[in-house]
Amino acid sequence: MKPDMTRYFPILTWGREYNRFALSSDLVAALIVTIMLIPQSLAYALLAGLPPEAGLYASIAPIMLYAVFGTSRALAVGPVAVVSLMTAAALSNIVEQGTMGYAVAALSLAALSGVILLVMGLFRLGFVANFLSHPVIAGFITASGIIIAASQLKHILGINAEGHNLLSLTLSLVEHLSETNWITALIGILATGFLFWVRKGLKPLLMRLGLGGGLTDVLVKTGPVAIVVATTAAVWVLGLADKGVKIVGEVPQSLPPLTLPSFSPALLGQLIVPAFLISIIGFVESISVAQTLAAKKRQRIDPDQELIGLGAANIGAALTGGFPVTGGFSRSVVNFDAGAETPAAGAFTAVGLAIAALALTPLIFFLPKATLAATIIVAVLSLVDFSILRRSWTYSKADFTAVLATILLTLALGVEAGVSAGVGLSVLLHLYKSSKPHIAEVGQVPGTEHYRNILRHDVITDPAVVSLRVDESLYFANARYLEDKIQNRVAGDKAVRHVILQCSAINEIDLSALESLEAINDRLREMGVQLHLSEVKGPVMDRLKRAHFLSELTGKVYLSQFEAAQDLLKCPN
Amino acid sequence: MKPDMTRYFPILTWGREYNRFALSSDLVAALIVTIMLIPQSLAYALLAGLPPEAGLYASIAPIMLYAVFGTSRALAVGPVAVVSLMTAAALSNIVEQGTMGYAVAALSLAALSGVILLVMGLFRLGFVANFLSHPVIAGFITASGIIIAASQLKHILGINAEGHNLLSLTLSLVEHLSETNWITALIGILATGFLFWVRKGLKPLLMRLGLGGGLTDVLVKTGPVAIVVATTAAVWVLGLADKGVKIVGEVPQSLPPLTLPSFSPALLGQLIVPAFLISIIGFVESISVAQTLAAKKRQRIDPDQELIGLGAANIGAALTGGFPVTGGFSRSVVNFDAGAETPAAGAFTAVGLAIAALALTPLIFFLPKATLAATIIVAVLSLVDFSILRRSWTYSKADFTAVLATILLTLALGVEAGVSAGVGLSVLLHLYKSSKPHIAEVGQVPGTEHYRNILRHDVITDPAVVSLRVDESLYFANARYLEDKIQNRVAGDKAVRHVILQCSAINEIDLSALESLEAINDRLREMGVQLHLSEVKGPVMDRLKRAHFLSELTGKVYLSQFEAAQDLLKCPN
Repeated sequence: MKPDMTRYFPILTWGREYNRFALSSDLVAALIVTIMLIPQSLAYALLAGLPPEAGLYASIAPIMLYAVFGTSRALAVGPVAVVSLMTAAALSNIVEQGTMGYAVAALSLAALSGVILLVMGLFRLGFVANFLSHPVIAGFITASGIIIAASQLKHILGINAEGHNLLSLTLSLVEHLSETNWITALIGILATGFLFWVRKGLKPLLMRLGLGGGLTDVLVKTGPVAIVVATTAAVWVLGLADKGVKIVGEVPQSLPPLTLPSFSPALLGQLIVPAFLISIIGFVESISVAQTLAAKKRQRIDPDQELIGLGAANIGAALTGGFPVTGGFSRSVVNFDAGAETPAAGAFTAVGLAIAALALTPLIFFLPKATLAATIIVAVLSLVDFSILRRSWTYSKADFTAVLATILLTLALGVEAGVSAGVGLSVLLHLYKSSKPHIAEVGQVPGTEHYRNILRHDVITDPAVVSLRVDESLYFANARYLEDKIQNRVAGDKAVRHVILQCSAINEIDLSALESLEAINDRLREMGVQLHLSEVKGPVMDRLKRAHFLSELTGKVYLSQFEAAQDLLKCPN
Repeated sequence: MKPDMTRYFPILTWGREYNRFALSSDLVAALIVTIMLIPQSLAYALLAGLPPEAGLYASIAPIMLYAVFGTSRALAVGPVAVVSLMTAAALSNIVEQGTMGYAVAALSLAALSGVILLVMGLFRLGFVANFLSHPVIAGFITASGIIIAASQLKHILGINAEGHNLLSLTLSLVEHLSETNWITALIGILATGFLFWVRKGLKPLLMRLGLGGGLTDVLVKTGPVAIVVATTAAVWVLGLADKGVKIVGEVPQSLPPLTLPSFSPALLGQLIVPAFLISIIGFVESISVAQTLAAKKRQRIDPDQELIGLGAANIGAALTGGFPVTGGFSRSVVNFDAGAETPAAGAFTAVGLAIAALALTPLIFFLPKATLAATIIVAVLSLVDFSILRRSWTYSKADFTAVLATILLTLALGVEAGVSAGVGLSVLLHLYKSSKPHIAEVGQVPGTEHYRNILRHDVITDPAVVSLRVDESLYFANARYLEDKIQNRVAGDKAVRHVILQCSAINEIDLSALESLEAINDRLREMGVQLHLSEVKGPVMDRLKRAHFLSELTGKVYLSQFEAAQDLLKCPN
């Protein structure tokens, strides 16, 4: 019973070893992360189309639940940019932003996503996430970053604009451009400029002044707090809210409320696909951060338990006024760099944010939305990385196609269509590649027992013996290709008496391929040609023995290609 | 220019060599096939829900066009059972059977299918058909056979019944069972019994009487003609049509008419998916017959040119009052066995059928529909073969799952849903299998240079060196699995200093897997562990050289696993 409990409750493992050193490290990390998270949480709530306090709430219960169930020691869970964008995209199709129904639908989306993650974790279905290939993720993140940045321009300019893909957003922005509030635009552009300078200019400056890399990074991450304080003060002192600068306004002073998502079947039906995509993408983002940080301390991450941890966190978000959450890259890195030793650091962060929600919300009454938009823009533009296009072009045209399609379709059609198309395309390209495997005709390298491609090497061959090496597992998608290849090779060449299939690279033969081999065997028999196999792997041979094929095979199965060729050359029929 | 012409017009090749011997062989074959095709064509038109003459028309122009464009010397093109059933299923959802619109929609379906085949042929997309795995096809054909047989019971009993899956058909049959016309039922049951006897009883009898196998087969195939003649005569002489026996009735005495399919976008939109499925399934059936027959004479089949030939045949069907056609199994085998030497036999068959359409149609006025239904039932029940379930169960549970799902879904939901689900499922199962590849930790077989699984063999290992052999190409679906495996193996074992990946079974590394290898390399470096590769294949190495990975690799790339282990044991760091 006990090992099972620690599997599902990792807190039992690290909680038992908790000590004063870990406590002090965790408290320092929590303080730094809390300061960083306040503006970030507010901003991502804005991005998701929700009131700012939802961002704080979404960071409190989820982070605590993850501390109980998660396996990463440093992962910080809460709202992240891409998931917030996907939340806004999913909900805007269903309910109008700003209505009560919108906030309730956000709870339902988090609940649904939590249940999906939990079920995947309990049934160990984490492998589903593997179908999101790296190029698709890279393309998707880049395109999402562009859409998110574009979607925040309306706040920077103080205008209204709608849209969930680049085209509709751009058109809407251009349409409303004349309504720009110039004071808002000034704040927005200054804030954006300042934040970029903090990243690009301040960091090298501090490094040159002799500060350590870790401390510099932490200071740079608190840049948003400085601009929040500065712009809030400016709006308050100069009374800019009366001049049309949109501000955050009244935010309830409260701990996260207990909330109940709607479980109306119609709503859940509309949310199920977005919830699934949000779950998978959130999981992929989270697990890769967790793995990277765990490796630095030689710790283990259990992907299936991570699903359970993220599932619990999302259900927590649904019950406490939040929206879908996952493990975030930047917050987790800050947490790790600031010295977090255990998930307790997360719990302390949650306490810090709860205090902020209770006590500090009056202070952000005059916080301009343009400032929050600026923090979002600067954060997401660091995600935009077109180098994946160049890298994939150099490495593989199939991967390049998948990246390009994902980027273009995400920009053109929005996040859901983009990522779905990317996954579908990468699966199709993979199947296409393996449907036309490399089949080399091989011959003996003189004086050795090695056999190599006759087109690339100077090798010995015999007109009566054709040796073919298939560089791919045989399965339904390439079985008939092999039939065609062999038929074409042998049909016109009357000298051929033996065909040897060198099976050293064949890891599997499925039933379709087995039936193709039977057909090849039958057809070669009709032509008076024998079929032989060489170098069949153990597991493949085990399986072939369960079928009739070996008893019907006109030729033999040889341990090595050399042995096969020797035997057939000795006794030509 | 010339070789291109013979590629697209195979008739130029065989036509040039045509001689008196081929002519007489082809004429004999054509006579036999014509006699066999008359009842079969009428029956399949009935199955497709069309007037009987459509079956004759669908065998005339298509067979001639295939003779010009097709590469098989013996393939006989025309209506076949499964495609006729799919035609009925596709059209019944859109227009009412028996109306003019139904016949026009059948033309559109044939035209659409022809265009799809032609485009696939011209762009060499024949590999798409490979995604229909053998188990899925076997399951689909079996389930279709059952549905077809069930759909003909209404003609046997002389009642009305509707439905395109087993459940709805059965319910409808039971509902109308009390309306059974007993004279029709008598004719239907006698005809069915006679045809079964011809197959099971007459054939052994003739063989025992000393007739050759080929001649026996031909005689057996003409059984349907005998029962057509007998029952038509009975109905005519005894005046059974007046007693409620449904007969074929008046069939126009005419050559195939020139017809124009409807190109209404709404109709084409509804037909595009069925047309695609019909094209693919028809192509798969046709190509496997063609390959089997070609092998017997050591001839070549060009799959892409076959697509063009079948495409032309279907367009021909659309323009001459037919419906979708393909190369049929039984008619092609009869053609081959009867001695057809070239596609000219097909052209002569077309002439024979044209004469039948012109002159013989008054003779089938009194032909009972029950007789045609009986010929269909006996033909399709020979397609029903549940042994695929047993075979796939023994060989591979994944293949078994795909077969079972295809059979059950086809029976439950109909042909389109069944085959689509089967294809989807077999792709998913394939991806699932390759997403969890076999990864063996290997050690040295004492006294040799061979490395084998440490779990299966008594081998030498070193605590500082972990050697892993991955038995699968690395791509996005299994890249993260490898990351997890390596992290789990190394994270808890502080003694490990080197990880060697033996790449002998890796035929491809895609960009996702490359980035996973980079992540593995980075994480191992954090743990103070070096990553090495051994036995990387040429094409994989070529590609790796285009990326940065090799320069970042903490360890080396070795030609053999033995060399790698020797080197690392000599100089431990």
